[in-house]
Amino acid sequence: MFEKRIMKNLLDKYRKKPIKSDVLSYLSSINEDLWILEEDLLGTIAHVVMLGEQNIISNEELKDILRELRNILNSIKNGTFKVNFDYEDIHPFIENLVIEKIGINKGGKIHSGRSRNDQVACDIRLKVRKEILSTASLLLELIGTLLKLAENSINYYCPLYTHLQRAQLGIFSQIPLNYCYQLSRMIERLINCFQEINKNPLGAGAIGGTSLPINRKLVSNLLGFDGEIVNSVDAVSSRDHIIFTLMILTLIANCFTRIAEDFIIYSSKEFSFVEIDDSYASVSSAMPQKKNPDTLELIKGKMGRIYGGLTQILFVSKGVFTGYSRDFQESKIPLKESFDTIKSSIQMMTGIFETIKLNPTNMRNCADQSNILALDLAEYLVLHTDLSFRESHNLIGALVKKFNDINEIFNINNLKTTCKEIFNKTINISQKELNFLQNFDYVLNQRKSLGAPNQINIEISIKEIKEKKENYIEKIQNLQSKIEKSEKKLLEKADRIIA
Amino acid sequence: MFEKRIMKNLLDKYRKKPIKSDVLSYLSSINEDLWILEEDLLGTIAHVVMLGEQNIISNEELKDILRELRNILNSIKNGTFKVNFDYEDIHPFIENLVIEKIGINKGGKIHSGRSRNDQVACDIRLKVRKEILSTASLLLELIGTLLKLAENSINYYCPLYTHLQRAQLGIFSQIPLNYCYQLSRMIERLINCFQEINKNPLGAGAIGGTSLPINRKLVSNLLGFDGEIVNSVDAVSSRDHIIFTLMILTLIANCFTRIAEDFIIYSSKEFSFVEIDDSYASVSSAMPQKKNPDTLELIKGKMGRIYGGLTQILFVSKGVFTGYSRDFQESKIPLKESFDTIKSSIQMMTGIFETIKLNPTNMRNCADQSNILALDLAEYLVLHTDLSFRESHNLIGALVKKFNDINEIFNINNLKTTCKEIFNKTINISQKELNFLQNFDYVLNQRKSLGAPNQINIEISIKEIKEKKENYIEKIQNLQSKIEKSEKKLLEKADRIIA
Amino acid sequence: MFEKRIMKNLLDKYRKKPIKSDVLSYLSSINEDLWILEEDLLGTIAHVVMLGEQNIISNEELKDILRELRNILNSIKNGTFKVNFDYEDIHPFIENLVIEKIGINKGGKIHSGRSRNDQVACDIRLKVRKEILSTASLLLELIGTLLKLAENSINYYCPLYTHLQRAQLGIFSQIPLNYCYQLSRMIERLINCFQEINKNPLGAGAIGGTSLPINRKLVSNLLGFDGEIVNSVDAVSSRDHIIFTLMILTLIANCFTRIAEDFIIYSSKEFSFVEIDDSYASVSSAMPQKKNPDTLELIKGKMGRIYGGLTQILFVSKGVFTGYSRDFQESKIPLKESFDTIKSSIQMMTGIFETIKLNPTNMRNCADQSNILALDLAEYLVLHTDLSFRESHNLIGALVKKFNDINEIFNINNLKTTCKEIFNKTINISQKELNFLQNFDYVLNQRKSLGAPNQINIEISIKEIKEKKENYIEKIQNLQSKIEKSEKKLLEKADRIIA
Amino acid sequence: MFEKRIMKNLLDKYRKKPIKSDVLSYLSSINEDLWILEEDLLGTIAHVVMLGEQNIISNEELKDILRELRNILNSIKNGTFKVNFDYEDIHPFIENLVIEKIGINKGGKIHSGRSRNDQVACDIRLKVRKEILSTASLLLELIGTLLKLAENSINYYCPLYTHLQRAQLGIFSQIPLNYCYQLSRMIERLINCFQEINKNPLGAGAIGGTSLPINRKLVSNLLGFDGEIVNSVDAVSSRDHIIFTLMILTLIANCFTRIAEDFIIYSSKEFSFVEIDDSYASVSSAMPQKKNPDTLELIKGKMGRIYGGLTQILFVSKGVFTGYSRDFQESKIPLKESFDTIKSSIQMMTGIFETIKLNPTNMRNCADQSNILALDLAEYLVLHTDLSFRESHNLIGALVKKFNDINEIFNINNLKTTCKEIFNKTINISQKELNFLQNFDYVLNQRKSLGAPNQINIEISIKEIKEKKENYIEKIQNLQSKIEKSEKKLLEKADRIIA
Repeated sequence: MFEKRIMKNLLDKYRKKPIKSDVLSYLSSINEDLWILEEDLLGTIAHVVMLGEQNIISNEELKDILRELRNILNSIKNGTFKVNFDYEDIHPFIENLVIEKIGINKGGKIHSGRSRNDQVACDIRLKVRKEILSTASLLLELIGTLLKLAENSINYYCPLYTHLQRAQLGIFSQIPLNYCYQLSRMIERLINCFQEINKNPLGAGAIGGTSLPINRKLVSNLLGFDGEIVNSVDAVSSRDHIIFTLMILTLIANCFTRIAEDFIIYSSKEFSFVEIDDSYASVSSAMPQKKNPDTLELIKGKMGRIYGGLTQILFVSKGVFTGYSRDFQESKIPLKESFDTIKSSIQMMTGIFETIKLNPTNMRNCADQSNILALDLAEYLVLHTDLSFRESHNLIGALVKKFNDINEIFNINNLKTTCKEIFNKTINISQKELNFLQNFDYVLNQRKSLGAPNQINIEISIKEIKEKKENYIEKIQNLQSKIEKSEKKLLEKADRIIA
Repeated sequence: MFEKRIMKNLLDKYRKKPIKSDVLSYLSSINEDLWILEEDLLGTIAHVVMLGEQNIISNEELKDILRELRNILNSIKNGTFKVNFDYEDIHPFIENLVIEKIGINKGGKIHSGRSRNDQVACDIRLKVRKEILSTASLLLELIGTLLKLAENSINYYCPLYTHLQRAQLGIFSQIPLNYCYQLSRMIERLINCFQEINKNPLGAGAIGGTSLPINRKLVSNLLGFDGEIVNSVDAVSSRDHIIFTLMILTLIANCFTRIAEDFIIYSSKEFSFVEIDDSYASVSSAMPQKKNPDTLELIKGKMGRIYGGLTQILFVSKGVFTGYSRDFQESKIPLKESFDTIKSSIQMMTGIFETIKLNPTNMRNCADQSNILALDLAEYLVLHTDLSFRESHNLIGALVKKFNDINEIFNINNLKTTCKEIFNKTINISQKELNFLQNFDYVLNQRKSLGAPNQINIEISIKEIKEKKENYIEKIQNLQSKIEKSEKKLLEKADRIIA
Repeated sequence: MFEKRIMKNLLDKYRKKPIKSDVLSYLSSINEDLWILEEDLLGTIAHVVMLGEQNIISNEELKDILRELRNILNSIKNGTFKVNFDYEDIHPFIENLVIEKIGINKGGKIHSGRSRNDQVACDIRLKVRKEILSTASLLLELIGTLLKLAENSINYYCPLYTHLQRAQLGIFSQIPLNYCYQLSRMIERLINCFQEINKNPLGAGAIGGTSLPINRKLVSNLLGFDGEIVNSVDAVSSRDHIIFTLMILTLIANCFTRIAEDFIIYSSKEFSFVEIDDSYASVSSAMPQKKNPDTLELIKGKMGRIYGGLTQILFVSKGVFTGYSRDFQESKIPLKESFDTIKSSIQMMTGIFETIKLNPTNMRNCADQSNILALDLAEYLVLHTDLSFRESHNLIGALVKKFNDINEIFNINNLKTTCKEIFNKTINISQKELNFLQNFDYVLNQRKSLGAPNQINIEISIKEIKEKKENYIEKIQNLQSKIEKSEKKLLEKADRIIA
Repeated sequence: MFEKRIMKNLLDKYRKKPIKSDVLSYLSSINEDLWILEEDLLGTIAHVVMLGEQNIISNEELKDILRELRNILNSIKNGTFKVNFDYEDIHPFIENLVIEKIGINKGGKIHSGRSRNDQVACDIRLKVRKEILSTASLLLELIGTLLKLAENSINYYCPLYTHLQRAQLGIFSQIPLNYCYQLSRMIERLINCFQEINKNPLGAGAIGGTSLPINRKLVSNLLGFDGEIVNSVDAVSSRDHIIFTLMILTLIANCFTRIAEDFIIYSSKEFSFVEIDDSYASVSSAMPQKKNPDTLELIKGKMGRIYGGLTQILFVSKGVFTGYSRDFQESKIPLKESFDTIKSSIQMMTGIFETIKLNPTNMRNCADQSNILALDLAEYLVLHTDLSFRESHNLIGALVKKFNDINEIFNINNLKTTCKEIFNKTINISQKELNFLQNFDYVLNQRKSLGAPNQINIEISIKEIKEKKENYIEKIQNLQSKIEKSEKKLLEKADRIIA
């Protein structure tokens, strides 16, 4: 606080030379500070309550200060708060509002034992922990929607693709379920991240702590933090938790670029596996059936912002000398933008999948028109003849080279003759068995390996994901209510003191 | 225009189902469109003038349309223009404003032979070419300031550093001059980039051109473009020119992180080579002489945005199927932010260097307290004895190992004895010569190689940079006045038609 | 040179304490130095020739040194050169090889007036300028192949896509031509980059030049450089030219990810526009017709390396204090890897397009099965009725909403009735005209706007690209032969001196 | 396996046209496969043991196959294994080695129920989990070394810096302790990452599982995995765990760039807080005391590779269609390079800090020569007068403006007079108190807030970190021994079967 930023009005008189107004506007962060405005007030309230309990300020001073802070918080909550953009940042502005009301004698005590360095670090953590939980909640809604999609498509046969080529017969549910597993991992990571974030840096002062008898653990308790960032240098200098948060958002973003691409391709006329609902597409007024999956494209495009935000902060923090420095001032912007972008994009994604129409006929046609069962045939030979897998594989390869038509390949005579030619072996299966092998139901019934696209497996997976989901919902709600309770308790305490 | 985005009011009735309002707000770009608002109007004016000349619209229609467009442009220029943020983007909004005034019969002709795909591509090019030139102009001012710094410090001896260790004796001017050379290369690149950008994509339509008898070359001429992006797919699908622009801004950003770091270190108490002026620093009110180079730190930090912007657009454009797609919608944001950031940072940098105070005494002390002349001694031996460079180098090495004191090393007896010991060679120089070699003026006078820190060289360099600068100013002004002339001519033409 | 890296053998005795062997191996760059080995020899030959001409070394010394350097260069060229990996880098190793042969008395003169700081900067520029030209040459071959593809597909009608949805009727040639235009811009950029790179940093010494009477311009001349990096600090400290080179390679990489994606999608069964030749695909032995476009996928994937390389060097150079520092040592790796990757990928791309099979029937079918001519119809109405474009557009929109079938939309009664309903206007065109408008040849004939997919335009474009290509080939060859000539001349001069 | 890559020899005859040799070499990954060679063998051994237990292969077949695999594994472990680089990748090469020995009849059964898609996914997880643990172990050694540094410097007073300006008095231990806290968080993250990685993807087949009666849970058990990646699409298509691993390495890298920068600056002549040991520095033979912190610079520079690797894989995975595709082939390279780089850099860092020499005198001098106690004075006034913090702060500000000399500021008359002037208040403290406040011991004793640089706090922190460290060591060792046990058990089982 004896630190770098000059408080308007209060401090200008101690400068040898005034700062230039364009310099002030270059330095100012007041615009992005609005993102953490409420959290700043909560942090300050907890700080002064502690100052009172530690007898650093008197009960009367505490009462007066709290009353003013509560008024400001109320005006923020009901939307009547007005920002004076001439201030360099939000912190001196709030202090000044209080001083104007109750005088520097009392109001000037707010900042005792605190610096803007640890204050802003605290505000960001208070904000980010909320954002993490609301992001996780939205992801859980998306998982719910994807689960419904999986349930609805359990009878929809389709090719599974490798190299964008039809590879094996599958069930469409497998695709949304695959997303559910990925997104579950994202939620695990968000919860881990929450635990990293939810630590208290306040009390570290400018960089070397304070000689006032503050009580950091009390503040942690009032703000619902799980412990402190102990080392005072670490508390004001490190930014790994911010980078880590952006990394996890980037992982989600990356996952979303792939989901979006999948469904842009699935909704092309050439694939026609799905139809984006009109309410989530741009319907061209002039080209019949030309519906553009703009929302998906824009989700894909907007993910670039999150990725750009991660890069920005990684670049900024590279090689910065340990201690507080101004380089990090702009961390708030990529954080805010990334959370805003990911949250609105999750909602968009949820809406798209809630309303999307699947075309099982087209999916099945794509599976019918290909030799998608070749591997199933090869494995059947492994189980019912004495061909090794490699021999069986080579045999099918030779058949394919000789015959282009799927019916010729599934012809018992061709199979036997070719096998004789290559390996001089006789295989003992019938045309009836081969015919059976062309039946999709039969084939998928054999695909019993855990996680393979078989109805039973899929039902098991759906159940597993549902349980995971319920479990996560509980965890997230617990964390959320813990935060809310501590906030409620803090404000009630403040109100009791004021009254 | 038969394209993806639905025009509010006009088009909603042709949708089977209305788009949801949160979807519209997710899709909307109207906020960032304001960046290209003026350019959009200019592009539209040129387009309709061409439609008139090609008899696609009548003189009367042209007159009415132009009058309305001019009114809108005027209201933008005088700040009375009001945006309706319910529109998805700026293009249908402008068209609608005209239609409301003169009816769909006439106003509905604006968009003939054009799509929003080529329209927005054109707007961005019109905007970016201006931004490039204003960035270059600001850089030239910075070069001017650095040149003055170089001129002022031509007698300031200082160590030149390698590995942040004092390496060779130098002259401080060498540092700002080194920046000048780098920034000159940036200007060259900006000029090359301008030439890439200044091409006309308008006329490519949605992606496949138009069957109306438009005249693309006429539009190019009216807008001051140097030729067209010929291929219609290339015109609406490629974004390499945007990436390239951001790359050059990133190069400048990268250069700035190093300049900022240099002067943060130079202004530390421990170095004390320079003092940032109070008007560009945060002066701590409580710690005497603690002046924080916040502006330099923030410049360094803000460069991350530009780098993040480049990453964003590189990530977004990766693997996008050729054709127009919505992924690129957000390109405007990193462009706008990057230009804003780099331009304000150049100005900040210029202000810092205009007012910075150099401390030649501290610089010289740092040079005095080190064995910075060892290499000069070694080279002297090469020239005046029959030691090869490697022998001479080894000899000094041995001396250093034996003696810690600089005076012992420049002692002729020590030198001779050690040389005898190692190489069994006698060297024929005197103590007087060695004494001479400890004189800074003498030593730098010997450093005659082109570009070495010798006053004469530095004067040559200053002259060279000055000439480069004048040359660039002329080039930039020519490009700027070409653009301004074409704009003026276009509006005069419009006004003649209206009248 | 009195600088940071310790020469094995020669210098170890002057250390107070030996460097640890794992530290040496951590510091060593000798592996990646092999990339610039030949260039290092050429640079050293030019340097000593200059030392001779400036009388810094005697004719006899020059002769002996050159003979040894020539021998080493020959052994490199004929593959018999053996590296001793115990050296920290290649520079002391080469010097030592010479010293071992002709003694430190003569051999120890090689490094006079030079430092490893300027030496390695020179080597990299000598290498990169060659790599730029060979990259450009390979791109020109690719352009040649794409031109043939464009010529062959001038009669292949296909949809042009926006949002991966069929948008307007086009001609397939438009796609490869679009790549040609992009790649032409890449070649322009490479040529600009060559001009930046081809400057001589040698003579800057460690950072502050030298007191020996060297002649930098003579060295530039011997090595075919166009001028010098004048400022000695700039010469050893700046890396913007390396970043810029990687930026241009990244632009090419980005273009390649899109080309690869286009053709992965085009070669999916669902699109079936193209068939990758067996020699460039992985043919699955078991799934008939399952051919995987692995080469395209891998090209796409490998582009990540180039992008990663750019990021690496941008990250490394952020905020580095001006002067020489070891941070940049690893620049050679991303440069080498990026050039290797891009060059092999260009060749792969060329091979793929040389052998690819196009399926015009499938392309045309995709165009037939869609209402791809709606915009052409709207524009016809603009030209032949008094509907404004917006009215015409709305009319088609209304038709589409009412009728799903393309034939109903192109039905004159429906058109007239709907027009009457909406605008209360009578339009005066015939069913015959509408029928005409469904003819692909007719429609594309109307699409006369410059760069639109019309056979005549395409022929013009092909011609334009061909001329560009010839022009570039000439430029590249001129640059290449200039370099080769200077190299040849230098070696001849050396041989004359030796003889 | 019916999949994309063609097995040399065995499969070439089923291709219609041979693949070109340069294409094969472009596609080949055999070089980087060596990184996962041992893990590949272990995975295959577990797979065939399971095939035996499930009766998919007979006991005799199992025995023969295992014998050959054990022989290969032994030859790898004792360094006699020879790779045939003509193979596209390591997988067919290993299978072929077995087939050559025991015939296709038996050897051809290895690959039953498996694809290279799930095989390589499994290999990478087996490898990465080891690398994570060895990275964590090395970090723990570094923490141990930093702890010793902290213990040794508990009496070394120094300035703590903000903005690279002296801010508050501190104790040097605070700096290494701050690193310890950061690195502890890295270890937490690595442990979380291990838990993500240690899941079994094997059994997912090409993408849709297998119809052979495999037992995935058995394989998990044999390989020491904690569960499976259930969904078959997820198992072969997702790469989030690889990106996440690289993200955590990037966080470490980022931390290292700051540590390196700190000590490069600390070891500059101007700071002289520390001296890098000769064994970790380049000692210049010619410039006495010029010791270059090359190792620190190179650590800083090498971190760029890790960052580049993260960017590469993020770029590669953007927008890739779900399913297996070749794009990801090169993931192994950034993983390998990043682990190699971070591990050697941690060792280098440990060595540097084990041998570094601290200069407490210089540190203390820097603290003495500054008004570093201003904040302590202000806080003293808050505690012992009735000035509010803001008043006290303003008072010190006024004093600083009036007096430049530290003694004038700590003069009781000046203090009182100025206080009277500004606030018209009398403060009741004595010169004796002010004198006390200039005593470093006294001042730091007051700094009692948790985590502030006070000897008692530092001792508590050292104890806390020590406990954390012991705890982590135990955790890591448990994980390590679990892996080793499962490996040992698997090989013993294999040996029992063979015998």
